Order: sequence, then C-alpha cells, then structure tokens
Amino acid sequence: MSRFITFLTDFGLQDDFVGVCHGVMKRIAPDVQIVDLTHGLDAGAVLQGALVLANTLPYVPAGVHLAVVDPGVGSVRRPLALQDADGRFFVGPDNGLLVPAAELAGQLAAAHELANPAYALEPVSRTFHGRDLFSPAAAHLANGIELAELGPPIDPGALVRLDLPKPSVGADRIHATVLYVDRFGNVALNLAREHLEPAQIVPGTTVELELRGDRYHAVAARAFADARSGDLILYEDSYRSVAVAVSNGDAAQLLRVRAGDDLLVRPVR
Amino acid sequence: MSRFITFLTDFGLQDDFVGVCHGVMKRIAPDVQIVDLTHGLDAGAVLQGALVLANTLPYVPAGVHLAVVDPGVGSVRRPLALQDADGRFFVGPDNGLLVPAAELAGQLAAAHELANPAYALEPVSRTFHGRDLFSPAAAHLANGIELAELGPPIDPGALVRLDLPKPSVGADRIHATVLYVDRFGNVALNLAREHLEPAQIVPGTTVELELRGDRYHAVAARAFADARSGDLILYEDSYRSVAVAVSNGDAAQLLRVRAGDDLLVRPVR
Amino acid sequence: MSRFITFLTDFGLQDDFVGVCHGVMKRIAPDVQIVDLTHGLDAGAVLQGALVLANTLPYVPAGVHLAVVDPGVGSVRRPLALQDADGRFFVGPDNGLLVPAAELAGQLAAAHELANPAYALEPVSRTFHGRDLFSPAAAHLANGIELAELGPPIDPGALVRLDLPKPSVGADRIHATVLYVDRFGNVALNLAREHLEPAQIVPGTTVELELRGDRYHAVAARAFADARSGDLILYEDSYRSVAVAVSNGDAAQLLRVRAGDDLLVRPVR
Repeated sequence: MSRFITFLTDFGLQDDFVGVCHGVMKRIAPDVQIVDLTHGLDAGAVLQGALVLANTLPYVPAGVHLAVVDPGVGSVRRPLALQDADGRFFVGPDNGLLVPAAELAGQLAAAHELANPAYALEPVSRTFHGRDLFSPAAAHLANGIELAELGPPIDPGALVRLDLPKPSVGADRIHATVLYVDRFGNVALNLAREHLEPAQIVPGTTVELELRGDRYHAVAARAFADARSGDLILYEDSYRSVAVAVSNGDAAQLLRVRAGDDLLVRPVR
Repeated sequence: MSRFITFLTDFGLQDDFVGVCHGVMKRIAPDVQIVDLTHGLDAGAVLQGALVLANTLPYVPAGVHLAVVDPGVGSVRRPLALQDADGRFFVGPDNGLLVPAAELAGQLAAAHELANPAYALEPVSRTFHGRDLFSPAAAHLANGIELAELGPPIDPGALVRLDLPKPSVGADRIHATVLYVDRFGNVALNLAREHLEPAQIVPGTTVELELRGDRYHAVAARAFADARSGDLILYEDSYRSVAVAVSNGDAAQLLRVRAGDDLLVRPVR
Repeated sequence: MSRFITFLTDFGLQDDFVGVCHGVMKRIAPDVQIVDLTHGLDAGAVLQGALVLANTLPYVPAGVHLAVVDPGVGSVRRPLALQDADGRFFVGPDNGLLVPAAELAGQLAAAHELANPAYALEPVSRTFHGRDLFSPAAAHLANGIELAELGPPIDPGALVRLDLPKPSVGADRIHATVLYVDRFGNVALNLAREHLEPAQIVPGTTVELELRGDRYHAVAARAFADARSGDLILYEDSYRSVAVAVSNGDAAQLLRVRAGDDLLVRPVR
C-alpha cells in the first residue's frame, strides 16, 4: 500500500482533465493522498516533464509517481508501469518521460506494459489515457496490487529514452542549451557547476552570453541578492543547474529565450 | 456523512476565492476530502460549467457536488441544494448549472432553497455566496445534516433550466455549435457520433468545415495519431462529443473559434 | 499538533515550486492537511500577499500559516516563525508579509528566526527558501515541535512592517489607491465604508472616478445585480473594502488600472 501518488502532467488547470483524474483515483483508492507536482508543463513537453519528475523526486514522499505528457496518445506507444531499485512505482507513457526519474536509484527493478482491462476504465478512450488507463493503474498500485497484475513484463532496455542535449565545454567558451524557463523568467541551462570550471568561472566572474548574435554581460553569483536590481546573473539554481536570471526581473523576457534555444557562455577576462 | 465534496467554479486560481472556500469547508467538515474539478471555466460560463459537471460526474466519487458559476450573485436568483435519484447532493445557484448533472440519474429526489442562516456565514456578503452560502451548505451536507434543514422545498419543475444548443442534422450538411474549447485547442461540438450517421461520416471520411465563410478540410479519425501532424481531424472525444482537433496542434487557434460559434460540417464525396 | 497548514505564495502553478513544497511538507508531516490559499499573487507582490493573508485568516482553520512572497531570498532578510495571541503560527520571510495577519488577534506572542539546521533541508539553497527552509519549518511546527526549537527569539518590534497606503478623505473628494485587482477585474481600494461617509456616498449616490485625467461615472450599489449590465459600480466587497466593478464586465480593463494606481472619488450632486 502506498499512501501517496504524485501527479505531473501538461494538462493545465483550465479544464477538468486534472480534476477528473483525481476523481478516478479517489474512487479506486479513497484514502490515498495525491500530491500535484505541477500540471503547467508546456503541452507535449516530454523532456521538461522528465526533468521535473527527476529533479523533484528526492523532495516528495515515495509511493506511486504518475506522469502524463503524452502527445502520442492513441498511437502504438506503450502505456507503462515501472518499479525502481528503491521500490517506487512510476506510471505513464513509454516516451522517455519516466526513465530519468526511475533510474535515479540505479537499474530498474521491473517494467510492465499496462494491458490488463481489469485495471482500466473500459472502454478506454483513444484520446484520454490519463483518465482511463494511467490514473486507474496508479490508484490500483497504491492499493497494493502486484505490478505484474497490470500486464506483461517489458525488457527495460527496450524502453524509449530521451536524448538530453549535451553541452560543449571549453576553456574559452561553453555551448549550452536552455532546458527550462520558469514563471519568474529564470532560464535553466544544461550545465552543472563543474562545466564552468574549465573556463574558471566562479562567483564574481563576468561572463558574456551570446544568443542569436546578441550579446549580454552577466556576473556569476551565488544568489539573486548578490547583484544589483536589473543585472543579469549566472548562478546555480535550487536543482543544481546553472541558470540565468535577472535580479528582480525576468531573464527569459530580456533575452527572448525559451526551452531548446542555444546560447554561448564566455568568460570576460 | 459524505467523505467527498467535488468543487467546480469559474473563480480562477489567481486570487484566494477557491482557497478561502476550501478553508470554510474545512472549518466545518475537517475530514471531508475536496476534489477540485476545475476552477478555470470562463467567467460566467454557466453552460460550460453545466456540461463539465455532467460529463465528469461518472468519474468522481459520489458525495456533495458543489458548483459555482454565478453571474447573478446578489440578485433574486435562488441558492439551491438538490438531491438526485442516487442520493448525491448538488449545491449552487439556480441558474441551470446543476440540473443536467443532477438529472443524469433520473428525476430529482428533492430541491431546497438555501435559506437557513444557521448553515451560512453571517452576515452573508452580496458578492461572494461561494464563500458565505454555498461552501458552508456543502460542508454541512457532507457532515450529514438533513437536506430539509437548509431551507424550504422547491418544486423541481420551477428550477431554471438551460437551453442547450441543438444541431440541425442532414445527409448533406450538419449545422453544429461549439460547446467547449480546451487547453489543447480541441473544439467540442454539440454532436454525438449518431448525428454523423445520416451524412455517412465514418472514420476515413473527408469532411469540409465551414466557419464565417472560411472552409477547411478535415478527416474523420479515431485518434490524434491517425492523422499526419498538422492535419485537422473530426473525432469522438473522451466524453463522446464529436470534436475537431489538429494532430500535434491547436484547432481553436487555427479555426479562430470559441464556445458558442456556429460551424457547418459537410461530407466530401 | 496542527492538522492544517495554509499555504500562500507568488510561485504560480506553471512550475513545480508549489508541488515540491507540498512534497517536502508531506515527507515531514504526512497527515497534515494543506489548504492552498492561492499561489497566483503577482511575482514579488508582498503587500498584496499580506492583505490576502490577513483577509482570509478568519475563514481558514487555525494552524500553521505558511506564506512566501520573497523577492529578497538569499539576502540578509531573516526567515521567521511567529506565534499570534490566539496560538496560530506564521512562517515566512521578514519583509512585512506575515505581520498584518499575525497581529489581527493583538500583540504577537512570540517571534523567532529560523536558524536551526535540524529543521531545514541541508544544504539550504540560496534561491528557494520556500522548499528548503519555510516548508520544513511549517511542517515541523504542525508536528508539534516548540517554536523556540526553530531558532533564537526576535523582538517583535524589530520586525519589518509594510506601509499600507492611506487614503485622503474629504467631503468633496477622496484620494484612494488600488490595493488589488482580481480575476474578474474587480478593483479593491484602500477604503472602508466609513471613508465614504464624510462625502455622504451611500447606495444610490452617483460618483465620479478620476484616473490619469480620465473621468467615469459610477453608482454606489450593494451588489453587482443592482446595476445595469455594463455600468460601473462602487460597492463594499466581500472583505469589506470599497471596490469598483462593472456589472457583467471587467472594471480593471475598462479603467486600465492595476495595484498601486491612484484614483479620485467625487460625489456627483
């Protein structure tokens, strides 16, 4: 029995998609607690969903982790339930969304395809597997059914995996990609602090950011408050990604960037 | 005693309206579980609210179903509590919002006006009956008070009822109305699959959609994935309405439609 | 032990900020109920947050009241836990956000700085104290730890306090400030009903509103429904602020105002 289901989607909160999934889960598992991670992912943003799921996992109660960003709903992509090395369960589509989080604890313990109609809402619609397939499976897992009850095993090696963009790191320049832009306009890059070391970028170093030919100066800093209001800073964000922000401002708006854009970082000596 | 209150409004999540209603309910019924269906209805969209409440009812736990889309707050419109033939309770304004859901199980068992100040927050404001009247009534019902305690009975025949737009269906053309546009831009029409039968529209049939004189080709399909990316499709959505979508795109944006707009569907032979 | 934590932020619901704080609290206090007041405050809107927290307090269950609007995160501003005269706890930054709500019941009973690493997520990030510092403290308080365990006492007189804009009230004109614009476009002013008395403005009085040189006629009314659709009204809102609305419309859009703007109200004789 799991007391908790965490829930992550790109459904938005404008419609009843999220609410009806809560309803479906509560009909099956009335005592389970549902923790909504967010439902505000950009529509179809599988990579961003995978990053959020993996980043937040250490901060949420272990249990069943339900995630649905599913542009391929109704196609041949498989519906999945996974178990990680620590016993956590993950439910969602086989499009790479679940794997980075589910492999944080090491090799997967098990992977199964959702194929047992006893644990789905029949007839399963062609366009809303979140309601008809994934939410019921998550709630039944929370109720303690065996993973293998949900359907046949899958070779974990055969799961779809995402290509995370890799940075190109040098002493004079770092070629990075924007992974995520948040509500405050903070811009997370595919860089960790160690990627800044060859270029000797440390708190206090001035850097140049180049995007689409435009250049901006920023200062490496530890916190927003270490810069003057309006200044661009390069900092390690709360999930340990290197990110760009404007102190008391919106960096994404200033730089006109969004997820997937490329950017160069150069130290200014 | 009901363990569940479902909650649907047009309050949005920008302000504290929803949160304060949760607070009011939890002060009265601390152990009740509140399932938020959505609070993202367009402001004043009573018809859309009624559709969402009725569509989602089979997917949520039975209990008290609180819905507030209430452009007439503070006027003479009556505040209501209804009981359906299956014993579910519905609380909200007498503007047609509750009736389609409450009559899914057949004729209403009872209807009462909220008039007992013992079950309201006094003084009741003139502009926020969600907080002062409807949330307390829902929570007291969840606690097990008798429906008749809330106020005098009303003849169910005297309740305000909505006019749902009716399609005009022929073998050559179907005149339909947009009921609902969702966050993905999918456009639900006031049509069920049987309305397509006289025109012999089945999966694979090409149709022409006409709006404001503009014409578009679409293909009848079972799922988004049955069409090429960017193609318009006509499909049966997860609530069994006929709907228009763009595979991996936003149909409402492409067609520039919103709830209430008219549209013609013609089979192309 | 508190059964309830109320939670108010400017985090928005687009990202995982709110969800991860829920996760952190549920890991520490699995049985606590979290009531989200709203997370839709404008980014950095400390004054609006303080008003919402104080306005809603009488409507929510007593317990721990967590609020995070924190443009100074990572600077020297202190993280706080307060106890009010009724025994409620408040957790958040020392920027004035908590004080108006915490002093509703009279002088504070206690104020402490959050400084004990045993009740934080170590290492505490420089940019997300909501997750690493405030949520853990709120959850531990809900679990029943002593306030003094969280860190050293602070003199309540040394807390940061907000300057609430004060109206200038006369018999011929009232100079007011917009405190808050809600999702329906209703415009709350820094006026209570008694501020209208010197100008003898009562329901039925016509008033002139002046903003940036533009003038509009409005009617003092008790409820939206007392005016014709489209008319501007001046009314006492559900938190007893004087506010401007358009019956079945959006006053903020019509008047092009937002929080902080000034406006003159004159009775028309």
